[in-house]
Amino acid sequence: MKTLRVPEATITRLSIYSRYLERMDQNGITTVSSDEIAEGVGVNPAKVRKDLAYFGEFGTRGIGYNVRDLTRYLRKILGLDQNWPLILAGAGNLGCALCTYRGFNSRGFQIVGVFDNDLGKIGKKIANLDVLPMEKMPEVIKRHGVRIGIVAVPPAAAQEVAEYMVMNGIEAILNFAPVILNISGGIEIRNVDLSVTLESLTFNVSFKASQLRLSI
Amino acid sequence: MKTLRVPEATITRLSIYSRYLERMDQNGITTVSSDEIAEGVGVNPAKVRKDLAYFGEFGTRGIGYNVRDLTRYLRKILGLDQNWPLILAGAGNLGCALCTYRGFNSRGFQIVGVFDNDLGKIGKKIANLDVLPMEKMPEVIKRHGVRIGIVAVPPAAAQEVAEYMVMNGIEAILNFAPVILNISGGIEIRNVDLSVTLESLTFNVSFKASQLRLSI
Repeated sequence: MKTLRVPEATITRLSIYSRYLERMDQNGITTVSSDEIAEGVGVNPAKVRKDLAYFGEFGTRGIGYNVRDLTRYLRKILGLDQNWPLILAGAGNLGCALCTYRGFNSRGFQIVGVFDNDLGKIGKKIANLDVLPMEKMPEVIKRHGVRIGIVAVPPAAAQEVAEYMVMNGIEAILNFAPVILNISGGIEIRNVDLSVTLESLTFNVSFKASQLRLSI
Repeated sequence: MKTLRVPEATITRLSIYSRYLERMDQNGITTVSSDEIAEGVGVNPAKVRKDLAYFGEFGTRGIGYNVRDLTRYLRKILGLDQNWPLILAGAGNLGCALCTYRGFNSRGFQIVGVFDNDLGKIGKKIANLDVLPMEKMPEVIKRHGVRIGIVAVPPAAAQEVAEYMVMNGIEAILNFAPVILNISGGIEIRNVDLSVTLESLTFNVSFKASQLRLSI
């Protein structure tokens, strides 16, 4: 069987293209060129074409892409032609913020269970969900067929919580705790480190005076 | 004057390398090869060398890099040889989470002002900071020499808040609101869209069965 290696950065850009295409579709635009996509999202046109080429031939030379078809195809590539139930561990400020985060639902993500081991938090309601004790996690994972878990607990608890998720069938983890999780067995992990994004700003602000320029 | 174009992805990787090198330094390791950095952070070795080459010659062929020198140099490139005061607009769940986020302080970021226009929030304390009314923002920006602002307000308010920041001297914005900000005049904007990161997980989980592989 052929193994296709797709750079992580390509997947991230496909997400961004698909958002842009959805806005075009909402605005009644039916055809788009790779140059227009590139301009709209601030990426090099050759990169747009290369990113799309990983997944086969789209579009017609000289005419471009059908907006709706390409949108549908990108959502399918990204696995967004289905809904994704999620579980969330950690009902602190960040957990609450994630439960009410509007960007999730519009992309087919739905948090179906929130867990904490703090007795002061268990039983409280966040965005229509009861905060449950950790022991209830296996049951919720099974009932909803959850494959992705979000870790938003304090750093010291993150490793243990992640292991517990994996033990109960979770296949991929979005980790907000600023620690490296040590999980084997083909589990996909993405760390969201908010200071990494800030550092691309400090780079730019620092070097503005000395005429360095950035491209993406 | 020479204009250097550095890909955004390179800057992000430099952030990640610098974290890895700091851990090595803490562990008493003094010399590192690009292969070891590559292995440690999960990136292709050629990419590590190319990323570093944007900024000149480091290291000694056959020996590698001095961990502490390279760390210091990377922090300087990223603008982290200084402290960065930040302001934050929006004292909701996400704002509170950001104020207590431990990943910021260790990289020299410090939130020095939190602003909201909700009378129910103004005057409350978050992580030792009083939530201030928006009108106080210009004064705080000036007093601390703030150049970077964080937008964590609801989507409908984000554009107005971002414009107000820029009007008062902010040069770069980290935007958590799931909307595209329309700001001109050379202001750097980074959007943190939490569902983009989730979509790289759904891609992986979806295609696991069909033998697609991911690289970074």
